[in-house]
Amino acid sequence: MPLAKSWIESANSAETDFPLNNLPYGVFSAGDGEMRCGVAIGDRIIDATGLEEAGILRADADADVLDAPFWNDFMELGPEAWAAYRARLTEMLSESADEATRDALTTYSVKMSEATLHMPFRVSEYTDFYAGKHHAFNVGTMFRGPENALPPNWLSIPIGYNARASSVVVSGTPVRRPWGQIKAPDAELPSFAPCKRFDLELEMGAIVGQPSQGPVTVQEADDMIFGYVLLNDWSARDIQAWEYQPLGPFQAKATATSISPWIVTKAALEPFRTSTPPRERPLLPYLEEPGPMLYDIDLSVTLAPKGKAPTTITRTNYREMYYSAAQQLAHHTTSGCPMRVGDLLGSGTISGPVKESRGSLLELSWGGKEPITLDGGETRSFLEDGDTLALQGAARGDGYRIGFGECTGTILPALKDPYAR
Amino acid sequence: MPLAKSWIESANSAETDFPLNNLPYGVFSAGDGEMRCGVAIGDRIIDATGLEEAGILRADADADVLDAPFWNDFMELGPEAWAAYRARLTEMLSESADEATRDALTTYSVKMSEATLHMPFRVSEYTDFYAGKHHAFNVGTMFRGPENALPPNWLSIPIGYNARASSVVVSGTPVRRPWGQIKAPDAELPSFAPCKRFDLELEMGAIVGQPSQGPVTVQEADDMIFGYVLLNDWSARDIQAWEYQPLGPFQAKATATSISPWIVTKAALEPFRTSTPPRERPLLPYLEEPGPMLYDIDLSVTLAPKGKAPTTITRTNYREMYYSAAQQLAHHTTSGCPMRVGDLLGSGTISGPVKESRGSLLELSWGGKEPITLDGGETRSFLEDGDTLALQGAARGDGYRIGFGECTGTILPALKDPYAR
Repeated sequence: MPLAKSWIESANSAETDFPLNNLPYGVFSAGDGEMRCGVAIGDRIIDATGLEEAGILRADADADVLDAPFWNDFMELGPEAWAAYRARLTEMLSESADEATRDALTTYSVKMSEATLHMPFRVSEYTDFYAGKHHAFNVGTMFRGPENALPPNWLSIPIGYNARASSVVVSGTPVRRPWGQIKAPDAELPSFAPCKRFDLELEMGAIVGQPSQGPVTVQEADDMIFGYVLLNDWSARDIQAWEYQPLGPFQAKATATSISPWIVTKAALEPFRTSTPPRERPLLPYLEEPGPMLYDIDLSVTLAPKGKAPTTITRTNYREMYYSAAQQLAHHTTSGCPMRVGDLLGSGTISGPVKESRGSLLELSWGGKEPITLDGGETRSFLEDGDTLALQGAARGDGYRIGFGECTGTILPALKDPYAR
Repeated sequence: MPLAKSWIESANSAETDFPLNNLPYGVFSAGDGEMRCGVAIGDRIIDATGLEEAGILRADADADVLDAPFWNDFMELGPEAWAAYRARLTEMLSESADEATRDALTTYSVKMSEATLHMPFRVSEYTDFYAGKHHAFNVGTMFRGPENALPPNWLSIPIGYNARASSVVVSGTPVRRPWGQIKAPDAELPSFAPCKRFDLELEMGAIVGQPSQGPVTVQEADDMIFGYVLLNDWSARDIQAWEYQPLGPFQAKATATSISPWIVTKAALEPFRTSTPPRERPLLPYLEEPGPMLYDIDLSVTLAPKGKAPTTITRTNYREMYYSAAQQLAHHTTSGCPMRVGDLLGSGTISGPVKESRGSLLELSWGGKEPITLDGGETRSFLEDGDTLALQGAARGDGYRIGFGECTGTILPALKDPYAR
């Protein structure tokens, strides 16, 4: 599919994350204004709430769905309404649009550089998976030794755990280094101290846009997914190592999870579908994919020490996942677990096969034993206070890219006394 | 504290769960009417939504907080408002109330026998703990052998995992036996099949009534708790055994969790405070309790096969917990994890020291090796289709009891084909 041309010139650049082919959904505010639903195109944001209020573009003829600072009510409408809205918006923004339409949309738009971006949806619940095989093997090797690296169930189940929805924040939100129980390898008892091994995890997040009761097939699961975001699952490795047995990670993953501010729709990613890698063990039928359910999305992470330039510390691709979000969601429903609009599924860390494609510092520095060197000469085993992490992601089309915007976060030092009031 | 007498005679019985000392909060509907907030007293429900609408009893002078079918907005008001509302309600229902008050409250009340009870609050997120030592030791012995029964961290951390809020249902909701991935001990690969080892877990649920950002002390955590319910964490043991390594239980716990319909407030339980058992390992200071944070609440479970009389299968007490809900909540916030109004904390299974006080069939039948015998002669290792489970709980005062109502659920057979449409 070639670049679709817009009358908004900045959307026609091969460099923009937001060509007409993309049209991702977010929430913005400008100046002291209220939070509104918006659509990114080139260097502008279309005020979707304003278009709805004015009756210029409505997703539902009978009810306002964009009169709140989140896209959940829009998602509730379902796939037909999603497609119709996107088609109409594409038409109004394409170079064939008439003058009146152009004038109206110019009125209902702001410069992205003058807007503040907020959480694009309300997270109902958040589930994080462990579905990248390179990552699972690397971490398993460090935590349990190479002979037990991949748990016996790993090739049969898209392993996941319930994570904490209240901790999900939008890109740009600073992240405070947490305190927690930590037991040094040579200590008999744990201490309560600031995390010393604070880490990132490069992931994609899938957003559930339709509810379910009871088990759904992989195809039905794919149909339920509304879109995708970049996701950084900040992880306190020293807290995790001591707490995670037998019920899994808890406080190690509860400080924050950052997501990129634009929901890139499944529709925009459609040309970039690709298959999961060959199965090393046959899947149970309920997990078999009826078609390609992953996406070819280039991913990278930069780390910038305070006041310094960023260094790219990893480059990988979403197609490295062993399980797709649709498979994860199908598995999630097997027990009858109800899914709701706004549920967020983290893919699991997306590491590639080579060292330079690992999606966490734990893997890049091999548990701190092989610190990486940044462009300025500084080294990192884990994150330092003041470091700014940024995730980037884009699917690359013919003369255009479907970008996600950045997913950034800066590490604030731990509180001196977390109980001082 | 003696029984406080009410002009509603049924509330003065030593047998009722709902004397004037209790006044638990629920949501009810009568006939085809809408769902409304209510307060249980004796055999009646006071229509708290109606009292607010009529201006007879308001929790907030300026805003309606009971005009929705949940108590979350009331909880938002905070401890002072909770106390003031309870004091005023107690006064209006006490035997010293005047005729006009009695008439008004009689108008705004229904017979409990004619009402349907619903979820009393919206569950924001649900965290389940593993904080009963007898249970942890029993289960650990079966899953990992007696030498590894209690994980190394258990005496230092109130171990918990994020569970699934969307699966929480009110007492009386039938529970469908789930399908899932199950690997027989002698099989090389798992199969997808209905659960054969479906179980209950007798727990208490603590409801968070105030939000937090950043770590809170145990005292602050106790202040944040609004009230308690009975909780049955339905568990698919065969699914759990195969899936739980390394990230904890997931689909095994996601079919349903049932709670009793009445929120028994912390205020009503105040006379029954008791201390956690002696520490076997000193706690880190952030987990030390400034006072008694558990409650003396007798608990029991009955099991009734379809069409048969119930048998009491266990009797225990909430004071058997090693960690209190306040300690769990304090630990929950250590990483900076934000807590929200409506968060639900499951205590973990409450087993006592003897066989007859075990809080799950897994323990009672010792993994199915020692089936229990019901009164009618039937035996049970795990739950059978048609079985009705009921949890009961009450704190016992001088001539009265602070009861929770029942928490029941009946097992429906697994779907024949979960993907048939």
